[in-house]
Amino acid sequence: MAERGRGWARAVRGLLLDVSGVLYDSGAGGGVPIAGSVEAVRRIKASGLKLQLCTNETQATRESFVRKLRAMGFDISVAQVTAPAPAACHLLRERGLRPHLLVHDDLVPEFAEINKTNPNCVVLGDAAENFTYANLNEAFRLLIGMEKPVLISLGKGRYYKETDGLKLDVGAYMKALEYACDVQAEVVGKPAKRLFESALAELGVPPEQAIMIGDDIVNDVGGAQQCGMRALQVRTGKYR
Amino acid sequence: MAERGRGWARAVRGLLLDVSGVLYDSGAGGGVPIAGSVEAVRRIKASGLKLQLCTNETQATRESFVRKLRAMGFDISVAQVTAPAPAACHLLRERGLRPHLLVHDDLVPEFAEINKTNPNCVVLGDAAENFTYANLNEAFRLLIGMEKPVLISLGKGRYYKETDGLKLDVGAYMKALEYACDVQAEVVGKPAKRLFESALAELGVPPEQAIMIGDDIVNDVGGAQQCGMRALQVRTGKYR
Repeated sequence: MAERGRGWARAVRGLLLDVSGVLYDSGAGGGVPIAGSVEAVRRIKASGLKLQLCTNETQATRESFVRKLRAMGFDISVAQVTAPAPAACHLLRERGLRPHLLVHDDLVPEFAEINKTNPNCVVLGDAAENFTYANLNEAFRLLIGMEKPVLISLGKGRYYKETDGLKLDVGAYMKALEYACDVQAEVVGKPAKRLFESALAELGVPPEQAIMIGDDIVNDVGGAQQCGMRALQVRTGKYR
Repeated sequence: MAERGRGWARAVRGLLLDVSGVLYDSGAGGGVPIAGSVEAVRRIKASGLKLQLCTNETQATRESFVRKLRAMGFDISVAQVTAPAPAACHLLRERGLRPHLLVHDDLVPEFAEINKTNPNCVVLGDAAENFTYANLNEAFRLLIGMEKPVLISLGKGRYYKETDGLKLDVGAYMKALEYACDVQAEVVGKPAKRLFESALAELGVPPEQAIMIGDDIVNDVGGAQQCGMRALQVRTGKYR
C-alpha cells in the first residue's frame, strides 16, 4: 500500500490547480487566501513540480487576476494561468463570430481585439452585477432574433462561494437562456476538454503525469478525468 | 365538411381565453388591446358562450388585473379570471409550506393570508424588475440551504411580448434555479392540469365542450389538449 502510494506520487510531474475555493475565497475587496494555500504553492514550486492554474475565472483579465493573487502572496505569473476568455477569443476568430458580451466589466479587455459590431453570437461569462433583468433580456432578444442562435458560455458552474455567501454561477444564467431560446450553449470553460488540454500544453506534461486539484466535482474532477488526468477534490470552497 | 364544421361548433359551450398576447400586448403603461379583441369578447358574451380567462399572469393581483382589462374596454369580472397565485396559495396551505416570494411587487397581496416566516420553500413568479442579481442569489441561498429544496413556479413560459419587445418569462429563471440547486420545480400555472381544471370548474363545462384559445403552443395549446380540450393558437402575441 505504502509502495503503491510512493509509485503514484513519483509519476506526477505537474499540478493543475483550480483557484477560487482552492487558493482563496473570492468576495468583496478581492477575497481572502484559504489558510495554508500561499505556503502550499511555495512548497509545490520548491519541490520542482510544474504548476499551472486552470480557472473558470471570468470576472477579470488574467493580468488583473494575477495582480490580485500576487497581492495575496501567491508567486504566480500570467503565463501560469489558463482561463476561458482567451480560449473563447480563439474560437470566435476561428469561426468568424462577432460576440455580444454579457460578461463582467473587468473581463471586457480580454475581447479588445475582437470585432463586436453587428453581433452574430452571445458570449456569456460570470457577469455578476451585470446580470440585470435588462441585460438578460437584451442578450435573449439578440439570440432569439438570430436565424441560428449561437450561445457561447465561459463555464457552466452552478454556484460558487464568496466571502459573503454562495452566488449563482454562469451556468445558471446559461440554462435560462438555453431554455428561453431552445438552444444548447457551447461551453468553453471547465469541464470542457479544450481548457484542460491548453493547461497541459502550457505545462508540457502528459495527462497521466498530471493531477487536477479543485473544489468542484463536475468542473474540476469530472473534466480532468475525461482528459485522462487524475483529480483530487479539496474540502474548501463550495465543498458541502 | 361544412356539416362537420357546424357539428364541431354546436358542441362548444365554453371558451377559455389566454390574455397576454390574445386580448392585449402587455408593456409599459399597462399595455394595449390587440385590434378587434374588445369587440370579440363582447360578441362571445352576446352569443351565450361561457367565457373564462385562463392566464399565467403573475404581475398583479386578479383585482388589479381586472381593473386594467376593464379600463381597456373588456367587460370582465374577477370571478372570470383563473390565475396561478390563488392556485399556489391553495397548494401552500394544503402542504403547510411557508414561502419565500420572488414575485412581482404587485402580486404580493395575493399571498397576504399565507404565513411567510422561516420559509421552507420558494415561490417564483414573473418578478420582472425584481429579477435582480441580489434577489436571485437570495432565493438560491434559501433553496440550497433546505434539506429538501422545494421550488414552486407560477408558470414555465419561455418568454412573452411586451410593447417594447420580447421579455424572458418566469420559466427561464425557474431553469436557472433548478440547475443551480439540482431540483425540479413544481409548476402551478399553465400548462399544469390543475389550472385548466379550475377554469373549467368555474365555467361548469366539461373539457370536451370547451375550447382554449392562446398564443403559446406549449402552455395554452398543449396544456389544454392534455386536459381533453380542443385548443386554437392565435397568431398574435408571441406567435412567430
